[in-house]
Amino acid sequence: MSKKSKKSEEGITAKKEGNFSEWFTQVIQKCELADLRYNVKGFLVFQPWSVLCMEKMYKFMEETLQRKGHKPYWFPTIVPESNLTKESAHIKGFTPEVFWITHAGKNKIDERLALRPTSETAFYQMFNLWIRSYKDLPFKTYQRANIFRYETKATRPFLRSREFHWIESHCAHATEDDAFKQVLEDMETTKEVIHEIFGIPFMFFERPSWDKFPGAERTFAADALNPDGRFIQQPSTHMISQKFSKAFDVKFKDKDGKEKFAFLTCYGPAISRIFASVIITHGDDKGLKFPWEISPIQVMIVPIDSENEKLRKKAENLKKEIQKSFSVDIDFSDKRPGEKFNYWEMKGVPIRIDLGLKDLEKKKITIFRRDLNKKETIPEKDVVNEIEKISKQFTKNLVIQADKIFKNRIKEAKNLSEIKTAIKEGAIAKCNFCSVDKPGIPCAEIIEKEINAEVRGTRLDEKSKPVGKCAICGKRANHVVYIAKSY
Amino acid sequence: MSKKSKKSEEGITAKKEGNFSEWFTQVIQKCELADLRYNVKGFLVFQPWSVLCMEKMYKFMEETLQRKGHKPYWFPTIVPESNLTKESAHIKGFTPEVFWITHAGKNKIDERLALRPTSETAFYQMFNLWIRSYKDLPFKTYQRANIFRYETKATRPFLRSREFHWIESHCAHATEDDAFKQVLEDMETTKEVIHEIFGIPFMFFERPSWDKFPGAERTFAADALNPDGRFIQQPSTHMISQKFSKAFDVKFKDKDGKEKFAFLTCYGPAISRIFASVIITHGDDKGLKFPWEISPIQVMIVPIDSENEKLRKKAENLKKEIQKSFSVDIDFSDKRPGEKFNYWEMKGVPIRIDLGLKDLEKKKITIFRRDLNKKETIPEKDVVNEIEKISKQFTKNLVIQADKIFKNRIKEAKNLSEIKTAIKEGAIAKCNFCSVDKPGIPCAEIIEKEINAEVRGTRLDEKSKPVGKCAICGKRANHVVYIAKSY
Repeated sequence: MSKKSKKSEEGITAKKEGNFSEWFTQVIQKCELADLRYNVKGFLVFQPWSVLCMEKMYKFMEETLQRKGHKPYWFPTIVPESNLTKESAHIKGFTPEVFWITHAGKNKIDERLALRPTSETAFYQMFNLWIRSYKDLPFKTYQRANIFRYETKATRPFLRSREFHWIESHCAHATEDDAFKQVLEDMETTKEVIHEIFGIPFMFFERPSWDKFPGAERTFAADALNPDGRFIQQPSTHMISQKFSKAFDVKFKDKDGKEKFAFLTCYGPAISRIFASVIITHGDDKGLKFPWEISPIQVMIVPIDSENEKLRKKAENLKKEIQKSFSVDIDFSDKRPGEKFNYWEMKGVPIRIDLGLKDLEKKKITIFRRDLNKKETIPEKDVVNEIEKISKQFTKNLVIQADKIFKNRIKEAKNLSEIKTAIKEGAIAKCNFCSVDKPGIPCAEIIEKEINAEVRGTRLDEKSKPVGKCAICGKRANHVVYIAKSY
Repeated sequence: MSKKSKKSEEGITAKKEGNFSEWFTQVIQKCELADLRYNVKGFLVFQPWSVLCMEKMYKFMEETLQRKGHKPYWFPTIVPESNLTKESAHIKGFTPEVFWITHAGKNKIDERLALRPTSETAFYQMFNLWIRSYKDLPFKTYQRANIFRYETKATRPFLRSREFHWIESHCAHATEDDAFKQVLEDMETTKEVIHEIFGIPFMFFERPSWDKFPGAERTFAADALNPDGRFIQQPSTHMISQKFSKAFDVKFKDKDGKEKFAFLTCYGPAISRIFASVIITHGDDKGLKFPWEISPIQVMIVPIDSENEKLRKKAENLKKEIQKSFSVDIDFSDKRPGEKFNYWEMKGVPIRIDLGLKDLEKKKITIFRRDLNKKETIPEKDVVNEIEKISKQFTKNLVIQADKIFKNRIKEAKNLSEIKTAIKEGAIAKCNFCSVDKPGIPCAEIIEKEINAEVRGTRLDEKSKPVGKCAICGKRANHVVYIAKSY
């Protein structure tokens, strides 16, 4: 066996709640999700156990986008410098993060090429060619792609790497209203896929004016929660509006015969980062716990004795039966049964079938379900029905558990001291706030400097709520905001 | 409507056999497969109609590789210069084709990073860490990836771009025999997927010694045929053998306790290039013709009158029925029926259902099948059964047609003059040949200089055939070779 496998047999030793950072590192290494030893800083090798899950995540996200009328494209990985610099706020935001290609073969190339940090400036140049009339709108696209950011902050596998795997959806609309409807649809998509299928709770915030996507007019982002009380940004959707359509001359002839600039939106679910939240949201001290629909394997059959011919045959027959409906495999390795049990619990397989001779004699089968960490013994003939039943409850159970934890972490705070206490306890502080409408608000700076936390934004459904006084300065509050640490 | 759509309404005007190059260009543009107007030379934007097909192609290829024990990985897009230069033949072969990253943000980076032209040197550095014992072997991997080559030859969309989308499979084995078995398995995979599902005929050649993959000991490649008589290389599989395992120190402890260097193989099906052969093999003067399994849409319902409520309702009901088993859509556009018919024939949809009032009154339905370019009218109640029936014949029919054309293009040639005639007629010349075992064979140079063609290689199943005299020099022949033009 390889050195690596020996290590993984030890299992996870760090506690998720007590030492989250170490727990996360151990899960990535021992469950063989990614190897960090690739010799370029911030780049990693994604291993089969994470790739198999992320491929399923892509499938659900892409199917949902296609169902809602988005068409798939594959754009070039490179963007010429002149594209990237067309919109001033955009290039200002991304310049420090761009990898530049300057040579091809032995030649210096005429114009520097950026490894795409995001693809607005690639899509919009084609929108200029493709969109002519109001009949072409809405023009809804997306691509599955890898993108590159020379992160200056510390990189962390899956959470912040220098290359990550995402989907970016770019759309053009005839009116600002239509564009805003797209933003709402993107939020709904996030809920349908990331909450209901991947089981990750989040809140969608409109980001404060000082924290918008470079070049956007309004930015909305889903924040998921880590056990250390930090928010981790998940998909964001942006009202790009007309700044970019003016820079790239994306115009259409409207019903009234007039030429108008299109209203643009974009949406970016980063699959490799959402995968981090899958690990973090559902994992426990034993290791991973995959939602049913996206688990690399749904059922693992473990014969207590791999050499026993009767058990081998039974395992093969069971596999044949189960694989008609679900993905299933058998662990014929020469590990001891206890080791096998721990291993597959660590790897997060939803259902494990423990196949022993005693059970078999009684025509019984023992099933371990990872959602409830519970063993149950059932008549052999019921096994497929039971798996069927569990499959329908599994992700729902994970969602209930995760939602409860998330909800309990929100604390209302009336003043700076209560915000401090909430943050110290690893909670999210919800409070009244004077203004998020322009940069340089002193109350936001106080939060950053004194608590090292951030105003993450406001919720659309709390926009019109009458509010009292700002928790920091005591002046009239115009918003309810949420405050937390992030990475 | 956009300018683009108006153009596509004209349909294909070039003949596939008479003016292949123009035909290919028109199909790509008018069927909206790729837009060549992206502003970096040799890079293109893949549009939905090709992406939807290529995603299905990926699915079939990946499922087959996984079934045969390959595990999926995602490696970084970039490879440090020091990796790429570790094996001398490899870097010599790829140096002229590499895009180099030299800067990140405002900083010059310490070591230049290559956009991967292929990933042997990335995988092998990790093989070094992952492989310890004979028990770890065979170690079978693959990744879905985009790769980059600064092609100095003229680029052609799908056939030779500077960025293309492929799968690369890298494996390590304990013995040379095992490695060769992997090469044979790769050939079998190519047959199962690319011939039987994508319907593309090809011949697998062992390339002459002067035409091997840089760093490989033996190279085997599938050549498919274009109507202009040129071969287009499809997947290749290579006996990398021990050169690279020595360069990257990929060793394992064998059963006998001794440390040994692994035998390496790699296999590279380039999906975006195989897609070119899908277009070229099956297309006709009307346009595209997709094999059933990989068509973006399998059935298109065309109501003769989009405004007629009865037809609309019928179309919706039919769609509901058909989509239980197949992918289906309705064309409710305001084009004339004839335009719609031509459009979907051009776009290569396997089955079109023409929904007219007269048929409807008689409880009949008219089906057009693109494999045979034939209309048939059947009782309405039989429509799903009929589609079911056609679905089983469809790709088989395409394969029969394509195989026949391929077979007829091979001409046996006894001397240089007969080879010339064959090549001039757009055929592949099969002839006896003195030697392919070392570079600098005068007979190979004669073929290149006088006919502008290439010795593409020998077939494994013709290796041991007794042969007569070399068709060029008349000396003893050791091989049967195939000669054709390529790009």
